[in-house]
Amino acid sequence: TTNYQICLLPGDGIGPEIIAEGVKVLDAVGEKYGVGFTYDEALIGGCAIDATGTALPAETIQAAKASDAVLLAAVGGPKWDTTDPEKPRPEQGLLGIRKELGLYCNLRPVQIFDVLAGASTLRPEVVAGVDLMIVRELTGGLYFGKRERVFDKDGAGVGGAAGQYAYDTLEYSEFEIERIARQAFEIARKRRSKVTSVDKANVLETSRMWREVVHRIHDADYADVELEDLLVDNTAMQLINRPADFDVVVTENMFGDILSDEAAQITGSLGMLASASLGDGVALYEPSHGSAPDIAGRGIANPIAQILSVEMMLRYSLNMPEAADDVRRAVTDVLDAGFRTGDIKDADTPEDKVVGTEAMGTLVAERI
Amino acid sequence: TTNYQICLLPGDGIGPEIIAEGVKVLDAVGEKYGVGFTYDEALIGGCAIDATGTALPAETIQAAKASDAVLLAAVGGPKWDTTDPEKPRPEQGLLGIRKELGLYCNLRPVQIFDVLAGASTLRPEVVAGVDLMIVRELTGGLYFGKRERVFDKDGAGVGGAAGQYAYDTLEYSEFEIERIARQAFEIARKRRSKVTSVDKANVLETSRMWREVVHRIHDADYADVELEDLLVDNTAMQLINRPADFDVVVTENMFGDILSDEAAQITGSLGMLASASLGDGVALYEPSHGSAPDIAGRGIANPIAQILSVEMMLRYSLNMPEAADDVRRAVTDVLDAGFRTGDIKDADTPEDKVVGTEAMGTLVAERI
Ligand SMILES: CC(C)[C@H](C(=O)O)[C@@H](O)C(=O)O
Ligand SMILES: CC(C)[C@H](C(=O)O)[C@@H](O)C(=O)O
Repeated sequence: TTNYQICLLPGDGIGPEIIAEGVKVLDAVGEKYGVGFTYDEALIGGCAIDATGTALPAETIQAAKASDAVLLAAVGGPKWDTTDPEKPRPEQGLLGIRKELGLYCNLRPVQIFDVLAGASTLRPEVVAGVDLMIVRELTGGLYFGKRERVFDKDGAGVGGAAGQYAYDTLEYSEFEIERIARQAFEIARKRRSKVTSVDKANVLETSRMWREVVHRIHDADYADVELEDLLVDNTAMQLINRPADFDVVVTENMFGDILSDEAAQITGSLGMLASASLGDGVALYEPSHGSAPDIAGRGIANPIAQILSVEMMLRYSLNMPEAADDVRRAVTDVLDAGFRTGDIKDADTPEDKVVGTEAMGTLVAERI
Repeated sequence: TTNYQICLLPGDGIGPEIIAEGVKVLDAVGEKYGVGFTYDEALIGGCAIDATGTALPAETIQAAKASDAVLLAAVGGPKWDTTDPEKPRPEQGLLGIRKELGLYCNLRPVQIFDVLAGASTLRPEVVAGVDLMIVRELTGGLYFGKRERVFDKDGAGVGGAAGQYAYDTLEYSEFEIERIARQAFEIARKRRSKVTSVDKANVLETSRMWREVVHRIHDADYADVELEDLLVDNTAMQLINRPADFDVVVTENMFGDILSDEAAQITGSLGMLASASLGDGVALYEPSHGSAPDIAGRGIANPIAQILSVEMMLRYSLNMPEAADDVRRAVTDVLDAGFRTGDIKDADTPEDKVVGTEAMGTLVAERI
């Protein structure tokens, strides 16, 4: 029988609670399809800092690289918040593993589950039918460029007064833009065949190059896909104004960070959204939400985003599209049956049944 | 009698149509308060490119510097769109005048006019009471740092493949952060005394310095003002989730560009929002919206954002707060009386009277 090795990274906060439910669902899939899953758990983020002094220990990198896929929950918490550049920070684990595994392509699907449309702060008729995919470049741009802080004694650097001066570098190569553009066009072909490329070409040189490269790739190999350019500020508006019009949105790392969170919030149900980070080797799957330290350990966190990240893993890493469809159907059935975790409970539908993290995972697993 | 010299920059698209209504209202103010306004019109943006080959002719800079305040309408249009770095672009006029006049502080008030709450794509109960002020740093960051594109023949730059490579530099000095932070705290004291400082301190060195400087200024001189830090991605979410909770939001140039447009869209009435750009000398006032080339020349554009930029001019440059209040009251009265331009017409209230650009300007001016 086929056997897959899955690297589990529970991380911090609600991480351990929700990842257990992802594993529960994956085991149910394994049973149904006669596939074996073995798990290798490793440390990342704040818990790794506490145990080893670094947010991404070498053993974690090894475990991830030796696996068929990585399932991550979430990292971070107030305990490790600091602006001291000397101190380790949980998100270094996240940024580090993206770089180590070469995960340049972050996919963030944003969909409205019909029964949860009421959770959005947007009007129901505006969010009806929202189904978009943010394709975010994940290993370039401001995140990985050179940065520094210096004491600028004559103020010649910027501003004309003595004091500190700092910079970060937004950098891209043609190669990096080309490969993420190809991913976006390929994905669009399997969806509604429309790509919105987001940049700030009226200001940034990297954006002007971005726009040129995206159009070159489009015209050469993907002329069948509709392509539009949209400035990042205008995109921030249009996501609120007409979210259902978007299909695939491709953009650089920092713009993608901001816009994907904005797009996620449009659904009003952050606890329902998963993401995949792909490269040329092992890929990583995680919820779009954070580690929610305020509700950690109480058994009330919503595990569905984690479960849907298992769905993405089955689809993109394990080539089990039917099993992925099973997971999605199981989640939809559980929601349709009126089960809710606290975060997605609607005060207007008292007949809904509020359940905890474990019960929600079990309900989904049972329906696989 | 007092006489003020106003530099008018109509720019492109609907610019000339709406600025005429701003002038109409300013003249009405002049008559009421016995103040004289003389106008000096100059070229900026696309029309300046057509006439002189550059988006910001030297005479325009001179006219602006010689004035008591600058009233700008809007620049740009598809005619001048290009990614060719050799070609002049309309927005260079905008960026150039910000730099020339040292306009480091951009104020973008975002308010819901009660009668227009229905224009928002957000639920009425979510937008009720929205009244926030974005304070955007306007002469630093990615907008004015060094940028370059090079042919990187061995791909050593980034990405490991031959091709082009480009970079932009996000840079800030302590001095620049300090002065914008002070503006934010001063403004907050005149409002609800709460500042949200937005950064990406978990990734950017400039953001870590930003956060430190903002807190240092706060603790030393503005401890009475409430201060919270919010990551830019989280802010993009919270603006949709709980927009009414924000009072003053202060941030760096590019984050401010994105978030101020997002915040503006929350109202659903972009045609109603004005902005002020302040420095240590002459200040500039303009609508938050663009040049709307698609409706230019048809007499249907909404002049209210331009008229409210006159309100801000009276308040911040001409020290005429009563006159500023008059302008705002006049606009509110006209809206309450049911007059609308096409962009703010609500299909559900057929009793509203749709009027054109000139008529709307006259209605407001009459009520001064
Ligand atoms: C934690 C942080 C560094 C990270 C990012 O900015 O990429 C997060 O916001 C995300 O989107 O995964
Ligand atoms: C036109 C453009 C360069 C400008 C900016 O990005 O600053 C505009 O979007 C604005 O917000 O005033």
